[in-house]
Amino acid sequence: MRRSQLFVKTRRDAPSDETARNAQLLIRAGYIHKEMAGVYTFLPLGLKVLNNIANIIRKEIDAIGGQEILMPALQIKERYEKTGRWDDKVVDDWFKTWLVNGTELGLGFSHEENLSPLLKNFINSYRDLPIAPYQIQTKFRNELRSKSGLMRGREFLMKDMYSYAISEEQHKAFYEKAKLAYQKIFDRLGIGGQTFLTSASGGSFSKYSHEFQTLSKAGEDTIYLDRKKKIAINKEVFNDEVIKDLDLTRNELEEVRAIEVGNIFNLGTKFSEPFGLKVLDKQGKSVELIMGCYGIGISRVMGTIAELLSDDKGLIWPEAVAPFKIYLARLGDAQDTVRAAEKTYNELTEAGVKVLYDDRRDASAGEMFADADLMGLPLRLVVSQKSLQEGSAELKNRTSESTQLIRLDKLVETIANNQ
Amino acid sequence: MRRSQLFVKTRRDAPSDETARNAQLLIRAGYIHKEMAGVYTFLPLGLKVLNNIANIIRKEIDAIGGQEILMPALQIKERYEKTGRWDDKVVDDWFKTWLVNGTELGLGFSHEENLSPLLKNFINSYRDLPIAPYQIQTKFRNELRSKSGLMRGREFLMKDMYSYAISEEQHKAFYEKAKLAYQKIFDRLGIGGQTFLTSASGGSFSKYSHEFQTLSKAGEDTIYLDRKKKIAINKEVFNDEVIKDLDLTRNELEEVRAIEVGNIFNLGTKFSEPFGLKVLDKQGKSVELIMGCYGIGISRVMGTIAELLSDDKGLIWPEAVAPFKIYLARLGDAQDTVRAAEKTYNELTEAGVKVLYDDRRDASAGEMFADADLMGLPLRLVVSQKSLQEGSAELKNRTSESTQLIRLDKLVETIANNQ
Repeated sequence: MRRSQLFVKTRRDAPSDETARNAQLLIRAGYIHKEMAGVYTFLPLGLKVLNNIANIIRKEIDAIGGQEILMPALQIKERYEKTGRWDDKVVDDWFKTWLVNGTELGLGFSHEENLSPLLKNFINSYRDLPIAPYQIQTKFRNELRSKSGLMRGREFLMKDMYSYAISEEQHKAFYEKAKLAYQKIFDRLGIGGQTFLTSASGGSFSKYSHEFQTLSKAGEDTIYLDRKKKIAINKEVFNDEVIKDLDLTRNELEEVRAIEVGNIFNLGTKFSEPFGLKVLDKQGKSVELIMGCYGIGISRVMGTIAELLSDDKGLIWPEAVAPFKIYLARLGDAQDTVRAAEKTYNELTEAGVKVLYDDRRDASAGEMFADADLMGLPLRLVVSQKSLQEGSAELKNRTSESTQLIRLDKLVETIANNQ
Repeated sequence: MRRSQLFVKTRRDAPSDETARNAQLLIRAGYIHKEMAGVYTFLPLGLKVLNNIANIIRKEIDAIGGQEILMPALQIKERYEKTGRWDDKVVDDWFKTWLVNGTELGLGFSHEENLSPLLKNFINSYRDLPIAPYQIQTKFRNELRSKSGLMRGREFLMKDMYSYAISEEQHKAFYEKAKLAYQKIFDRLGIGGQTFLTSASGGSFSKYSHEFQTLSKAGEDTIYLDRKKKIAINKEVFNDEVIKDLDLTRNELEEVRAIEVGNIFNLGTKFSEPFGLKVLDKQGKSVELIMGCYGIGISRVMGTIAELLSDDKGLIWPEAVAPFKIYLARLGDAQDTVRAAEKTYNELTEAGVKVLYDDRRDASAGEMFADADLMGLPLRLVVSQKSLQEGSAELKNRTSESTQLIRLDKLVETIANNQ
């Protein structure tokens, strides 16, 4: 993409009411725009990052048998009355609305009450199980305060999967598969090393739920981490019994702040029983289905990456989520510079390399370099009179200080091999 | 995909409260699930169709310089007060909601009031223009009645683009490009032949707006069509003056019902003036930007295709939007049949052909064939004891009565070439 055709500009300062580092950086770099607290517009580059994250999640979830669907935001009151979740005293972050005829509706904060009644139409036998429908969909949560940028949204993109099983063993087997898939997802997203499986409160159907917590001072959670064993306990359930239960030792645990980027939960029959979602098992006995739920906040992950992988110059995207691999800066508008930069842009693009080409005539080298750092693309490539004297372009990693000259005729192969 | 792993089943009958043909067929074939009037869940195959449609639109819109972004559903009251669109008497299909602190919000039915204030941050000069941000996003419209299936949703997926120009000529040039892109889109979606550019009421800033109307008895609009010239007039502006203006002849016009699948509109300065969105032109004069808007209802297009391209047996998807190219039916579970079917499935899949493989052991040939027709994939391929006696599989087009035997060793090349 040509920078001259991008309608977005970078900014020196974030809005004064934006206190979260992730949002400050993302706004300054032109990835998002703040509409109100907890509500953002994703600008062209921000949407590319969001989609890249979603696609990594999609692939790993498909690989364990997830089936993607899309459920609506508008929610039917009666279903939530059945599960006891309509009352604002029970669920305190509802957005409610109504039809012209006065019928009350809610905006979905989670979708158990959609999916269980839907599945009654399709699941008749143990042979139909296990299944795991999921969606990548916009959630609405009426947070009282929302000051953490993309990390606590009132409207945000989420991957939510729901598994249904005929038995506790079948449930457990899928639950463990999902756990592994989650770790793989966070690895691919570039935050695996700082993300830890954390036991948290389990509710009525199992002792623990499991969170994936990414270490960050900006996190809203406190966890107790065993770095060697790579597991943690959420403060909400931290006590001697739990420490013993997880085979940990108190003085090897470190108290740290963390961001909950994912969670998995055994819901038992909480959302199958109220909807009569049961089938005959192999022995011909009618059994209520056992349900698990598995969430990843996609926009929250984007905020987490921005929060963690950044320095005083700006963002540092891992290649897997970066909107482009290369920031190509053209210095000056001498004819041969323009010609060489255009050729480089075309060749790289044709080779399938994603390039943001800064072809602006009114920007200085300093402005271009500052933008390249702020926007945080993995590589910066400079075509200038000086580099052309060597028949080369100058390549720099976002996180390195040194540059290297790459001969223009070797550029495509060099860059295609550069990780 | 293996049919045995798809949690969705086809149904003999649609819900009794569903009167629209498109929704009846799509529900019976397992593409969508009705939540309430005008609100549907997209099941795995339905979501694939929706995404295929969205991707065709995305490519053609990108090709004319559209820049994809994603704006939120939650809308700020003050902005709509500025444009006079907050009042329910002015916009009668609002969904309204509120924050915990009592602040009223709306759910977006269109996004002019989002985008114009956003662009004030980025557009400073005539050099920044023209631009055309667009999104593929969920809209909310509180329709009093919603009985047309996917064709009139209360919550639905829409592509909405907004162009901003410095002058009437610049606006007009982009408007004409968008018109051509729209025709291309409907051609690629398989409904181009039945879709006609229709002049409709224009509002304060131009004599006409333009709709793309697809002929269908199920349509809610009446248009007067000149089939030779391939243009039409919407009933709402149909009079002698308009007929003359468009150089048409009254007795060559045919009154027909049609579905509005897209529209393009000159908004003038209606949504730039209230937000002070103006820049200096080349002569240094401060100018309010001229705006166009360009909508395509993506889920409505899906409903329109279902309505038009179907017969008494079921759906007939054009290949460009079909969730799979082939319905592969395996008849019987003799060892060599299973082996040949598995091999066929794997080979086609590896060759990049999208196959829905009916590997169910408990379904009869009749059930499989009925499902293949109902689901409407372009090709049906049968592997059976009988076909294997000829070293072949039996191929049939969805719309043809005749079948042909294709040797298994020629299958991949034959199918890859079959349009």
